[in-house]
Amino acid sequence: MPHIELNSDEPGIRGLFRFRPETARPLNDLVEVLLRGPGSLTPGERELIAAYVSTLNDCQYCSCSHAAYAAAQLPGGMALVAQVRADAASAPISAKLRALLAIAFAVQQSGLKVTAADVAAARAEGATDSEIHDTVLIAAAFCMFNRYVDGLATVAPDDPASYDARAQRIVADGYLALLEQSQRQG
Amino acid sequence: MPHIELNSDEPGIRGLFRFRPETARPLNDLVEVLLRGPGSLTPGERELIAAYVSTLNDCQYCSCSHAAYAAAQLPGGMALVAQVRADAASAPISAKLRALLAIAFAVQQSGLKVTAADVAAARAEGATDSEIHDTVLIAAAFCMFNRYVDGLATVAPDDPASYDARAQRIVADGYLALLEQSQRQG
Repeated sequence: MPHIELNSDEPGIRGLFRFRPETARPLNDLVEVLLRGPGSLTPGERELIAAYVSTLNDCQYCSCSHAAYAAAQLPGGMALVAQVRADAASAPISAKLRALLAIAFAVQQSGLKVTAADVAAARAEGATDSEIHDTVLIAAAFCMFNRYVDGLATVAPDDPASYDARAQRIVADGYLALLEQSQRQG
Repeated sequence: MPHIELNSDEPGIRGLFRFRPETARPLNDLVEVLLRGPGSLTPGERELIAAYVSTLNDCQYCSCSHAAYAAAQLPGGMALVAQVRADAASAPISAKLRALLAIAFAVQQSGLKVTAADVAAARAEGATDSEIHDTVLIAAAFCMFNRYVDGLATVAPDDPASYDARAQRIVADGYLALLEQSQRQG
């Protein structure tokens, strides 16, 4: 049961967006540009970073959500996402993505844990400064979203089908469009 | 030295805002509404939560910045802010604010650390659901900002006067106006 009385029965962060629309807007603007805007990492790769960090933070709602969103946009599908969540070091992904996930792993603990060696290793595999920047910000942002969702004890659906259904809508329309639809429905 | 090559010598998060204006905008929209928008916690109290969490995360740039912004807006000034950063439990603040800081302390570790008892204690001191919500989101957001700033190894000025000068401008004009001024200057 959520720690505060929400004004809807929407699960996870969606109930918080409904409760506080003033903060919902910039939070959705942020994920829209960071996970789906122009960039050399694909949306699937960026969602994978989000799912990985959310798994490290034990956030059921966010990890199930972004695992589904990543799986819907990566050729390896949910099998690949599950491998990354279980052990990123041995999963069959590019060396560049593996090095970026190592940076995300450090950020999840603390920004101060990211070393020059971590960054040099990513650069050696071809990561650009923009990709390193976005990886750090995605990992940091999910340290926020995970704490927001669990710090208020929101409810996470158990049924995987609910996350898959949402994934189809996120891939087709994006975060902002779904927020606006939800707000129009009142 | 920052881990990536920034396009300015602005310190801390300001250099990152200059590097990536697409994400700077929603991040500034978020702090503007969360720390300065309408709400029953004063801007000084909200900045104090931000400074406290940034201190727990050992983020020099953010803790010095938001300590200065809190001090500029709280009757107790920097002496009070320093007491809270050193030991929130014994600082001379209201019982409600102390209970909200205890929630922020839990969020800094993990959203899953916030207990029903923490929330009940804040409510017993008069905290509303909106205040509990905003406390959790402020604490979570600074777990993002701190990781963003330190994960890219941005530079934090040593001189306290630089934070005080910025505080005067934040109090007078706000986060968004300063971002827009900076972007106009190119």
